[in-house]
Amino acid sequence: MVGGGPGAFIGAVHRRAAVLDDLAELAAGAFSADPEKSRAQGRELGLDPGRVYRSYEEMAEREAALPAGARIDFVSVVTPTHLHYGAARAFAERGIHVVCDKPLTTMVEDAEALRTLVGRRGVVFAVTHNYSGYPLVKQARAMVAAGAIGRVIKVVVEYAQDWLAAPVDAAGQKQAEWRTDPARAGVSSSVADIGTHAEHLARYVTGLEIERLCADLTTFVPGRRLEDDANLLLHYRGGARGILFCSQVSSGEENELRLRVYGTEGGIDWRQQEPNALRLRRPGRSEEVLRRGNAYLVPAAQRAARLPPGHPEGFHEAFANVYANVMRTIAARAAGETPDPLDLDFPTVEDGARGVHFIHAAVRSARERGWVDAAYAPRPD
Amino acid sequence: MVGGGPGAFIGAVHRRAAVLDDLAELAAGAFSADPEKSRAQGRELGLDPGRVYRSYEEMAEREAALPAGARIDFVSVVTPTHLHYGAARAFAERGIHVVCDKPLTTMVEDAEALRTLVGRRGVVFAVTHNYSGYPLVKQARAMVAAGAIGRVIKVVVEYAQDWLAAPVDAAGQKQAEWRTDPARAGVSSSVADIGTHAEHLARYVTGLEIERLCADLTTFVPGRRLEDDANLLLHYRGGARGILFCSQVSSGEENELRLRVYGTEGGIDWRQQEPNALRLRRPGRSEEVLRRGNAYLVPAAQRAARLPPGHPEGFHEAFANVYANVMRTIAARAAGETPDPLDLDFPTVEDGARGVHFIHAAVRSARERGWVDAAYAPRPD
Amino acid sequence: MVGGGPGAFIGAVHRRAAVLDDLAELAAGAFSADPEKSRAQGRELGLDPGRVYRSYEEMAEREAALPAGARIDFVSVVTPTHLHYGAARAFAERGIHVVCDKPLTTMVEDAEALRTLVGRRGVVFAVTHNYSGYPLVKQARAMVAAGAIGRVIKVVVEYAQDWLAAPVDAAGQKQAEWRTDPARAGVSSSVADIGTHAEHLARYVTGLEIERLCADLTTFVPGRRLEDDANLLLHYRGGARGILFCSQVSSGEENELRLRVYGTEGGIDWRQQEPNALRLRRPGRSEEVLRRGNAYLVPAAQRAARLPPGHPEGFHEAFANVYANVMRTIAARAAGETPDPLDLDFPTVEDGARGVHFIHAAVRSARERGWVDAAYAPRPD
Amino acid sequence: MVGGGPGAFIGAVHRRAAVLDDLAELAAGAFSADPEKSRAQGRELGLDPGRVYRSYEEMAEREAALPAGARIDFVSVVTPTHLHYGAARAFAERGIHVVCDKPLTTMVEDAEALRTLVGRRGVVFAVTHNYSGYPLVKQARAMVAAGAIGRVIKVVVEYAQDWLAAPVDAAGQKQAEWRTDPARAGVSSSVADIGTHAEHLARYVTGLEIERLCADLTTFVPGRRLEDDANLLLHYRGGARGILFCSQVSSGEENELRLRVYGTEGGIDWRQQEPNALRLRRPGRSEEVLRRGNAYLVPAAQRAARLPPGHPEGFHEAFANVYANVMRTIAARAAGETPDPLDLDFPTVEDGARGVHFIHAAVRSARERGWVDAAYAPRPD
Repeated sequence: MVGGGPGAFIGAVHRRAAVLDDLAELAAGAFSADPEKSRAQGRELGLDPGRVYRSYEEMAEREAALPAGARIDFVSVVTPTHLHYGAARAFAERGIHVVCDKPLTTMVEDAEALRTLVGRRGVVFAVTHNYSGYPLVKQARAMVAAGAIGRVIKVVVEYAQDWLAAPVDAAGQKQAEWRTDPARAGVSSSVADIGTHAEHLARYVTGLEIERLCADLTTFVPGRRLEDDANLLLHYRGGARGILFCSQVSSGEENELRLRVYGTEGGIDWRQQEPNALRLRRPGRSEEVLRRGNAYLVPAAQRAARLPPGHPEGFHEAFANVYANVMRTIAARAAGETPDPLDLDFPTVEDGARGVHFIHAAVRSARERGWVDAAYAPRPD
Repeated sequence: MVGGGPGAFIGAVHRRAAVLDDLAELAAGAFSADPEKSRAQGRELGLDPGRVYRSYEEMAEREAALPAGARIDFVSVVTPTHLHYGAARAFAERGIHVVCDKPLTTMVEDAEALRTLVGRRGVVFAVTHNYSGYPLVKQARAMVAAGAIGRVIKVVVEYAQDWLAAPVDAAGQKQAEWRTDPARAGVSSSVADIGTHAEHLARYVTGLEIERLCADLTTFVPGRRLEDDANLLLHYRGGARGILFCSQVSSGEENELRLRVYGTEGGIDWRQQEPNALRLRRPGRSEEVLRRGNAYLVPAAQRAARLPPGHPEGFHEAFANVYANVMRTIAARAAGETPDPLDLDFPTVEDGARGVHFIHAAVRSARERGWVDAAYAPRPD
Repeated sequence: MVGGGPGAFIGAVHRRAAVLDDLAELAAGAFSADPEKSRAQGRELGLDPGRVYRSYEEMAEREAALPAGARIDFVSVVTPTHLHYGAARAFAERGIHVVCDKPLTTMVEDAEALRTLVGRRGVVFAVTHNYSGYPLVKQARAMVAAGAIGRVIKVVVEYAQDWLAAPVDAAGQKQAEWRTDPARAGVSSSVADIGTHAEHLARYVTGLEIERLCADLTTFVPGRRLEDDANLLLHYRGGARGILFCSQVSSGEENELRLRVYGTEGGIDWRQQEPNALRLRRPGRSEEVLRRGNAYLVPAAQRAARLPPGHPEGFHEAFANVYANVMRTIAARAAGETPDPLDLDFPTVEDGARGVHFIHAAVRSARERGWVDAAYAPRPD
Repeated sequence: MVGGGPGAFIGAVHRRAAVLDDLAELAAGAFSADPEKSRAQGRELGLDPGRVYRSYEEMAEREAALPAGARIDFVSVVTPTHLHYGAARAFAERGIHVVCDKPLTTMVEDAEALRTLVGRRGVVFAVTHNYSGYPLVKQARAMVAAGAIGRVIKVVVEYAQDWLAAPVDAAGQKQAEWRTDPARAGVSSSVADIGTHAEHLARYVTGLEIERLCADLTTFVPGRRLEDDANLLLHYRGGARGILFCSQVSSGEENELRLRVYGTEGGIDWRQQEPNALRLRRPGRSEEVLRRGNAYLVPAAQRAARLPPGHPEGFHEAFANVYANVMRTIAARAAGETPDPLDLDFPTVEDGARGVHFIHAAVRSARERGWVDAAYAPRPD
């Protein structure tokens, strides 16, 4: 693991997600830019001190030098965004698989470079758009693909929080500080941190690609340097329309992530805070509520559940589902087998690159105060 | 009553709303442009045939000629939109009070002319933005005004339906036909029919006025001449931001009207389909759910309830609340008294004029594909 | 109307329910045992003073003496319970149709006498178990009858309130006073006032009759003379089991009426506070949520709706549905026609008699501290 | 671990719960009565084959013989009920701490013997009434204790499932088979399997002890030998009343566990399927919804959360909270320290013994068809 030192939030989530199914064990780490903190964290986690490193460069180099079987199977990069590129590249270049937090990078160029590198080195590279790990999100995706709601015409996706409603960044809260600091977070705060999750979720479920967008970004808390609220209109390729909004200052919202997709013959509705249910509404028919753990779900949704229906699962399990697929894919590759297509169901480096592209398009639109082209095309090497 | 003949929907709602509290009785009508249909409807409603008229012109003229006490106290105009102006003017000019359905008119000029006329003639003139009649909407307004959520920074208001998801207008469904016909509905369908309700609801609760907007209007059903889906970004005077979306083709949505308002110190959330509850969320505090009928509500909300808490009230009662205030205001005026300020809590001709202005601004923005100025200013006479 | 004087609650509900569809008009009344109050209420309601009576005896006698067409079509009895028997009998004996509030009487003997009288005189007699007027309750009944959930094996019905959690009766609150006074309410408070509604609702939906029951009645508020909380186990004829609980002291509950019915192949769930939805759950299938106003509902449910789906209806409309059916039945009878079977869908004097029987069985069980026979059989004349 | 072989359900839950926080590692097991299956399971879990045993007797004996530090810290007993006593005793006698699934034993005598043994040997002994591990259940307990709802007067606790609605036991489903087999499950199925959870949950939150009860147990599926549905009336010591119902044949219910507690000044409401919220309702005040992860919760609830508010946690985390407290208590004991009182917040052997007592009281009441004394008193050694 790179990052995830004392005081970090997402590092612990990654660790719990990775061990929940007993498919992985933490073996090495460079937990902090401060070697002492890194060592302390390694001790607390019970690691062999010889595999607690002072930097990701050292870790990549020395782990890669270990014999196969002794070295790490993959690395999780859970640092602030500006360090993703360097860390991910260091491992991918050495043929070590990577799980990287989102957004993939601060700059489009870096994201594209990683995408190219991953293709060239053939490593497994996942980006933790973890909401796609929820069983009923997988069900939604399968149902939309199967035409359960006809042709998609409209998407409404939203992600509202309030943890930055007060100037906690100015007050020194560590998580808030780096996310609102252009040097570490890049050109955006709310779009980069949660808007990309919303964009990925909508794309994962519908398969639709954004063609044009019009963004209205606002910084409500005085003194903050990046936007803390964003409202976007979207035009999808093929004619569908969309609304995406995200906010870190929607007072009273905890983590309100919701996706509604409307098609010519029905609509679906999913909310993270009620994650074990998916609503399907079709004109002239009673609403259906599908629930996790039932045999009527598609295989991708069924196997993403660990408990019988009615016993609630949540965020950790969804995160663990991303990890489980990644680890099964790595294991298949290690065994010289073709991964099961169901195992390949995790967000890739291309998903990450699309996310970075989206962030920059939103910022450009807001600056230009109007609609901008936002179609993604991979840059040639 | 003008309009509300056989097959009409909203006419019956107006009639039920007007009689629920036994404050009014239907006395006269011009129910249809077809005199035979008008007579038939009058018979069915048990009216004196001598007061069932062939046209609103005839009705206005002859009712105005009756002695005070014998003539109608006010008229309800419930025709398709293009007839509102003529009918409302005919009565207002003669000093007869008017309750008019929304949108007020198809054209901005007509709306302004009515506004001016009403001022000149001093009649009571209400526009049935009936959602403002819900007790908890009144509570929300009072709480926002009192600062319960701090300074408002963001509004999300939505109104989704699916009754036009299929081409029922092309198939001859009467309600659908006129609403999608530019000659009768004006320049817009979804914004005019439900978007104005959303706009009024947000303005009623927050007091905020739109300064600029960017609208994305789409006609999804082939052959339809007016938009059936609309997504808007809003800039409010003073810096608040907004999202307003409405749709008649959101498959599976029945009448999903919802308003969320976020302030610097909290947020409120109200949905028409759960109308007896209002949610107040403040960072660091437990969510509060306020319910209709309780003594902890403000007077405007308390008196808008007819039943104890827990016995659900709905659309009819909210509509009746608009009527009750109008009728109490008319009664006070008739008695030479100053109306109770609580009685004046109904949407006025100016609210109607603002709505028409909003519709035209949205259409202009969509045509110009960008942000437009949308500030309302009354036109000088 | 008999009862419903100043300060009464349910009288106004009956009046609004009766006029909502413009099928009736209030013509006469004996609103209070105090003639002066009766006159005052008559004035406020705009009645002809000649038809405002000093007592129900006078009203029954004088109205019956009016020529057909001039006299009232039916009477609504909305007094405290102990007066139901006398008032209802006075009108029924004279061949005047009756709508009577519940419970029908305080004593089983009186209920049976009314049942016999109604049969003999052939009058229409309705008891306002108004919750059976909700469209989705009618849908539930039809679905259970059609076997949608297989054979019913278990019923859970509950009705919780908190308005008597404090000793408001001792403090002189009028509604509370008579309901906890054995002289006016009879042998029971919570079972009589709301438990009978729950019992009727369960029986209406399932058709099941109670065979045995075990009741635990408690008076929690010191000094109160009748029980304010009741928990019952039920054995239904044919083997189904049930739980019925009701309470006037469940702090924080407003009017929580809910019915769950489980069969061998599914379950249904309906709550008054979300009255426009009915949930159908079947093992191995997604949950279905049926909503008011849709064409997929049975005719009895469809015609009980006045508004399109999504516009909430509630308590008043359900109450009005009982009245509408009664009035249509009376009209058919007056016209010498056979009433439409759908019009006969209202609670009858036998339903009322069953309710009184149930109350007394519950009280007997609580006194005897054990299971008692509770099968209802009409007493021979 | 004893039990939890191939095909078992709860074994995997225990394993995930124990490792989620990286506080434990599975070291040894006797996973099945069939030594071959036990070995297979051990291999799949990656255990040292030398610590995969043929029986719990062998495991207890040989682990106890290992030097401290090398042996297991505690054992989890996750077999069918009839084996709990023998297994738990084997370890407890040897001074090895025990986590045992519920119900503790099939017979009251065995439960009491274990209780006595645990006291004598001084081992840590937890029974996995895991629902007490939910953060908001802990909050509810603290609030009730602090008087937030006044004196408790009524409890409604329910646990409904439908997995035994069809005769899956007769069809050979392993989980169903043993739970409906008197030889393995004891005298009860639904009360033993889920009713005890409900009873514990209510007692955990309110602190109330049952004094008398009246149970109605029914076997709805033909051929089944134990009850699959149970409805109980409860009298608590001190005058509170209760309803407890549980069912394995409530078609359409997945795992509907809900607790409502009413006091003289308010009520609380918690449902497992919405576990991150707790509702507090007080007369004359708006309802409050408390949510997991917030700083306004009591310490016991705060530290039971791993994620920020709004990111859903569920069943696994609640289960892990039981384990975490047990493991921290064991660690403190091992270190010679006094455990933190917050760590002692887990269900004990006495809770287990109370549960067995409750099961037998319910069965006795049902047989005798009436109220029975159900007060628990520990049996003298």
